[in-house]
Amino acid sequence: MYPESIKNLIEAFKYLPGIGEKTAERLAFSVLELEDEQVDLFKDSIFEVKKKVHSCKKCNSLTEDDECYICSDNSRSNGTLCVVDDAKSVILFEKLGVFHGKYHVLNGLISPLDGVNPEDIGIDILIDRITKEKYKEIIFAFKPCIEGETTSLYIKKILEGMNLKITRLASGVPMGADMEYLDSLTLERALNDRKEIE
Amino acid sequence: MYPESIKNLIEAFKYLPGIGEKTAERLAFSVLELEDEQVDLFKDSIFEVKKKVHSCKKCNSLTEDDECYICSDNSRSNGTLCVVDDAKSVILFEKLGVFHGKYHVLNGLISPLDGVNPEDIGIDILIDRITKEKYKEIIFAFKPCIEGETTSLYIKKILEGMNLKITRLASGVPMGADMEYLDSLTLERALNDRKEIE
Repeated sequence: MYPESIKNLIEAFKYLPGIGEKTAERLAFSVLELEDEQVDLFKDSIFEVKKKVHSCKKCNSLTEDDECYICSDNSRSNGTLCVVDDAKSVILFEKLGVFHGKYHVLNGLISPLDGVNPEDIGIDILIDRITKEKYKEIIFAFKPCIEGETTSLYIKKILEGMNLKITRLASGVPMGADMEYLDSLTLERALNDRKEIE
Repeated sequence: MYPESIKNLIEAFKYLPGIGEKTAERLAFSVLELEDEQVDLFKDSIFEVKKKVHSCKKCNSLTEDDECYICSDNSRSNGTLCVVDDAKSVILFEKLGVFHGKYHVLNGLISPLDGVNPEDIGIDILIDRITKEKYKEIIFAFKPCIEGETTSLYIKKILEGMNLKITRLASGVPMGADMEYLDSLTLERALNDRKEIE
């Protein structure tokens, strides 16, 4: 029914998460209306992302170079290391612009039920890095979930005796949230972690 | 913040309709997880769609050849011509598989308020085709809207005296619709066009 190239492009869009048949069709047709230069940028960048982007050899974040721009920035305080489970989290924090330490990206979180063990997510490399570089504080910035807690506790245990402050992100009621729509776990955590008003 | 190629790919995704910053970021990251062959198909098909696909010289639908596969299919009844305002409509009807006539694609609908006049949407070419080929019936398959009605009436007037049956799609309550969520125009049309139960 479709010309061959449109059919291929629809298939290609369907490789992407959250894009089904209908959306893929709509997007493929919209490509017909792009300018030539836009199509060129699209085609080149898809190819180059896959070819050029790889993990920073130091922090495992994404970069086109040997070391990412954060690792090679000596002006960034070396006192604090923020450990995340996904390279995307680094960008979220960098967009905020309030954290000036360094990052380390794990390859996910420990999840025995899914067959993900400590050795699968690169904890050895993290420990190695912490041992070599002089940090005062390690922040675990995982999303609040069982796997996140398991991973934090597992690493904390290994780091015991290294005279480090080990912290995690506060969890609780998100700003602007409607109390009645909060799940009970979040509410319980918010109650347990309550802070004195100063 | 992003490696150059990821930044470019995010920009590229934002060219597509309905894709904002957040979705573009999510999609660009997901490309990193595609297989090499998938990335190749993606990049090639984006380019080829723009290079190879053009309008069928006869019906103005999309094709990679001179004439689309419907125009060049002599087994299709020539008695009925279905006039649509967008090449995508041809595919919708073909997926249904119940129409066996030919199609003609206008470049949109007459819309004086948007500065779209009869000469802008290729009505002359349609009239020319109807005059040359022997049709018994012309179906206007536009979506129900003022512009669709204007366009139908405009063409109908030109075709007067040519001994043609001129029809439009039925409009009314869609199957499975919830009556209370129907707009009043649809309900009015459904009432006016009511059919006797046989």
